[in-house]
Amino acid sequence: MSQFNVVFMPQRLSVTVEEGTNLLDAQIKAGLIPDAPCGGKGTCGKCLVNVLKGGNETGVVKACQTLVTDDMEVDIINVPKGYHLLTTGIERQIDFLPLIKSFNISVEKCEMGDSRSDWKRLKKAVSEVSGIDEKDIPLNINLVKELNGLLKECNYIVNVVMYKNEILQIRKEDGPVYIMAFDIGTTSVVGYLLDGKNGKEIAVDSMLNPQSQYGADVIQRSNYSMENSVEPLTIAIRNAMKKLVENNCKKAKINPCDIYLVNIVGNTCMHHLFMGIVPSALVLAPYNPSVSEPVIDNVNSYDLGVNPNGKLQVLSNIAGFVGADTVGVLVATGFDRIDKLTLAIDIGTNGEMVLGNKQRAITCSTAAGPAFEGAKIECGMRGSAGAIDHLKVEGKRIVYSVIGDEKPIGICGSGLMDIVSIMLENGIVDESGRILDQDEMETDVAKENAFRIVPNGNNKHFVLATKEESGEGKAVYISQKDVREVQLAKGAMAAGIELMSKQLGIDISQIEQVMIAGAFGNYMSPHSACAIGLIPKELEKKIIPIGNAAGEGSKIASLNVEEFNRSVAMAEKIEFLELATDPDFQDTFVDQLEFPEY
Amino acid sequence: MSQFNVVFMPQRLSVTVEEGTNLLDAQIKAGLIPDAPCGGKGTCGKCLVNVLKGGNETGVVKACQTLVTDDMEVDIINVPKGYHLLTTGIERQIDFLPLIKSFNISVEKCEMGDSRSDWKRLKKAVSEVSGIDEKDIPLNINLVKELNGLLKECNYIVNVVMYKNEILQIRKEDGPVYIMAFDIGTTSVVGYLLDGKNGKEIAVDSMLNPQSQYGADVIQRSNYSMENSVEPLTIAIRNAMKKLVENNCKKAKINPCDIYLVNIVGNTCMHHLFMGIVPSALVLAPYNPSVSEPVIDNVNSYDLGVNPNGKLQVLSNIAGFVGADTVGVLVATGFDRIDKLTLAIDIGTNGEMVLGNKQRAITCSTAAGPAFEGAKIECGMRGSAGAIDHLKVEGKRIVYSVIGDEKPIGICGSGLMDIVSIMLENGIVDESGRILDQDEMETDVAKENAFRIVPNGNNKHFVLATKEESGEGKAVYISQKDVREVQLAKGAMAAGIELMSKQLGIDISQIEQVMIAGAFGNYMSPHSACAIGLIPKELEKKIIPIGNAAGEGSKIASLNVEEFNRSVAMAEKIEFLELATDPDFQDTFVDQLEFPEY
Repeated sequence: MSQFNVVFMPQRLSVTVEEGTNLLDAQIKAGLIPDAPCGGKGTCGKCLVNVLKGGNETGVVKACQTLVTDDMEVDIINVPKGYHLLTTGIERQIDFLPLIKSFNISVEKCEMGDSRSDWKRLKKAVSEVSGIDEKDIPLNINLVKELNGLLKECNYIVNVVMYKNEILQIRKEDGPVYIMAFDIGTTSVVGYLLDGKNGKEIAVDSMLNPQSQYGADVIQRSNYSMENSVEPLTIAIRNAMKKLVENNCKKAKINPCDIYLVNIVGNTCMHHLFMGIVPSALVLAPYNPSVSEPVIDNVNSYDLGVNPNGKLQVLSNIAGFVGADTVGVLVATGFDRIDKLTLAIDIGTNGEMVLGNKQRAITCSTAAGPAFEGAKIECGMRGSAGAIDHLKVEGKRIVYSVIGDEKPIGICGSGLMDIVSIMLENGIVDESGRILDQDEMETDVAKENAFRIVPNGNNKHFVLATKEESGEGKAVYISQKDVREVQLAKGAMAAGIELMSKQLGIDISQIEQVMIAGAFGNYMSPHSACAIGLIPKELEKKIIPIGNAAGEGSKIASLNVEEFNRSVAMAEKIEFLELATDPDFQDTFVDQLEFPEY
Repeated sequence: MSQFNVVFMPQRLSVTVEEGTNLLDAQIKAGLIPDAPCGGKGTCGKCLVNVLKGGNETGVVKACQTLVTDDMEVDIINVPKGYHLLTTGIERQIDFLPLIKSFNISVEKCEMGDSRSDWKRLKKAVSEVSGIDEKDIPLNINLVKELNGLLKECNYIVNVVMYKNEILQIRKEDGPVYIMAFDIGTTSVVGYLLDGKNGKEIAVDSMLNPQSQYGADVIQRSNYSMENSVEPLTIAIRNAMKKLVENNCKKAKINPCDIYLVNIVGNTCMHHLFMGIVPSALVLAPYNPSVSEPVIDNVNSYDLGVNPNGKLQVLSNIAGFVGADTVGVLVATGFDRIDKLTLAIDIGTNGEMVLGNKQRAITCSTAAGPAFEGAKIECGMRGSAGAIDHLKVEGKRIVYSVIGDEKPIGICGSGLMDIVSIMLENGIVDESGRILDQDEMETDVAKENAFRIVPNGNNKHFVLATKEESGEGKAVYISQKDVREVQLAKGAMAAGIELMSKQLGIDISQIEQVMIAGAFGNYMSPHSACAIGLIPKELEKKIIPIGNAAGEGSKIASLNVEEFNRSVAMAEKIEFLELATDPDFQDTFVDQLEFPEY
């Protein structure tokens, strides 16, 4: 069966698929997270894309119903126009300044009386081609072992693979050079395979982080590693990454031995667990990282299944809960070159935020995430099949959509945000966060939906789906306690934004753009986020979802030596605001627990 | 049983022995090679030493008959006065500028809001104590793994072990730091255990190089590794070194995990085989090393049984047959600070020579050694029990001494040199190298010993011991062919000296001192060496045996960072003279085949 190349715009994500694959599956294969609540049955109409080139039909089509019949270029239009910044990297035209290079050299043949070593003459040849000073080329003793025979066999013309000034490999002839860029998340790991000769992404794959067997979140995993050993967690993630290397290489039909560079981003805990560092510093006060410096190491000892002579790069951490993933976001957005006053938010398990521009930037971390990842919410769940992911008011009725077009079994982060915003805007919840009683309903929508309010001891429920309507025979509802959790999360985020603004000496209204990174940022409704006050209302129109910016940053830092260096500088320069010790935090937090008034 | 410390002067070699050990065994334990042909029976009187302090009796005594009863200081007087330069290092008072240091640091405790990593605060503390710039301290990710717990456990006061700017280990408290210095010879390997806190040698041990199973000399071993694999040879030598580490640690009762630095010298072939480098470059024209740069590496991958976080240093090579052992000699003699015009000769399997002084130095290598190591000589053998090691004329009789006071079974290098010189000086061999016929004898000694000349086809024998007198029922003799071998060896050495002098633009008589390194240099008679013309006659009074200078250099380079750096500079600066391609070599060599006239 033939294979075709589909390029997704505006990210220019390229993926090779078999003939007859539909565009929804192609997006998934490309590592995108398309919105397809009906599960690709062609019924929900949410997976619309704009075919620009190729295919049987250009223009707007349902991705799940459109088959790949030739090379295609497709715009993912179900994200509001102008909001795309996943592609910042590409849009600001990252130069390809590769860290890994390969080139042929002609080594001077040794003559009788010439006492110079083979390595010395090799260095001279490398220096002549690359301009690198011989003195700056470190000795790689492993390469010397077979060097004399190799030089003779190749008649003194060989190919070298370099990482900056280091010779990583000496080959008989020029060959491919590949790079793997990883984004290690608490939930999932994404691995991008890049062509080191031109910087192009040639394959991508992701999988769930198998460390989940040792705990769902960073705290549980940290506790496990402190009580038992960090080793099983380290091995688990490295094995997963090895598998991603393998999968990507199979997809792209390349030899993993041609991968000479691995670049990694991840939150501090994922960073430490990958490196084999006991994360006690992170999870015990005062919550600082054990190491924040960028790691540049030989990849060999990490058992990732790539060329054993290759290099490993891990981006810097910033603080205990502001990790290399946030540095990845800084890289992807080119934060040190942004003029506009920018708020960047990466909502994962924690909500990491950066406020500022190229002159000055402040970062902080809040424990905002868990509620939006389904934890601590009575009917909470991840954004998978059966989750109510979006709600809206049609007439007076509250209607919901369910991922996979199934009967609802729970509610995910974006749904939670939507329902709380609906309840607020229609007077079902007041600004103090109290779910009103049935007899307090005043708006039409509130009255129409009063029946949903069911007292349950001292914990009111607002039922979205009765047990008859639900997929698992249990009602899906949002409880008074859940609303409190949302308040705590939004209060922390909003307080963080307020305190960073204060430290920067600006008014929130001066913020010119709000970049939301991460999958959740793509899913959530900006309106709802502002309606509940997670993000200040006045910023609603300035919100730009930028997709997996951390992963994008990982790729960029592996392709451009200057960007890597900038990442180090940004991580060093950025100011860290520890909310827990900010004298104003408690006050601000309590203030921000209140929802906006409607 | 009590243990006492014996210090051998003038080297200040210190060794700890059990009460009742005799001074001969103590010398052997100290790595010295005492001259004791009777094997310690008290009969030959060659092992005289001068007890300076301690013992039952001070003054000159037989070492083999003198027991250690308390701490002693002993001068080894059986080496001509003023000739000792094994101790150059000590005599020129090597400063102790250790490459390895350990000290306590107090790490700033992390406070809430401080986002600096544990490693960053550790670096700061190291910097404050050591003066090393934080930026120059590289990240050691292995040490970060348990760092947070360790800091807390030790209340933020820990001990660090450093190699230059690198942190090798973080310990709970200060502890010992040891160093192993090796000299890898083709025949034997010597390992010195040094106290890294004061530079003192605390144990020494040596063993035969087990690579001999793959071939007696460098050519055979190289061929083996090229035809089969270098790996077994690499493993063999590393295992031997591991054993020496073990033995020394047992002797000194220390933990091998406290050894943080290993320094190595050896000839180029031993160097390459240890490193795992196929030595094809060395043994095939044009005979250059595969690597000449100094190696500084993590010791972990060499499996030497020392602290896995330790470092490995291997001194530079100079040319294909001028290796790190010669660089060791340069270090031991402090060649870059010598004003006097100096000839340094290290006679091992090859004869490596250096001529010059601090301004300019030239080196060359000649295949002089094998004859003096017993190879290619019909009754040749190593300097072990049963070897005729010295000969002299008493009255008209030629008398010999045999190692171990046994019946002779062969002749070793020093004996070979003595007998050829006696034959020359008494007209038994003429200057062309021909053993004269019985009827050509003219001197009294020649006439007295004419009976020893036994024709054997066209290869005359000069019999030293008849089969009845010998230990194995076979006559011990020197043949016409053997004399030719001596001529070839001495011709090459003498030609080398002549050509180096010519290149330096000096007359041989201008040479102010001749340093002879290596065990053979200690054994051989300087008079005989000059009598046969191996060393120009006019230099006889300028000869200074300097013992195992290569090993001494290995020790010095492990104890003084400046000396290590100087070794690199000397290896780079020294000029290499390839005799094989010198247009004058053939002529000079043929001229020098002639023995001096008597």
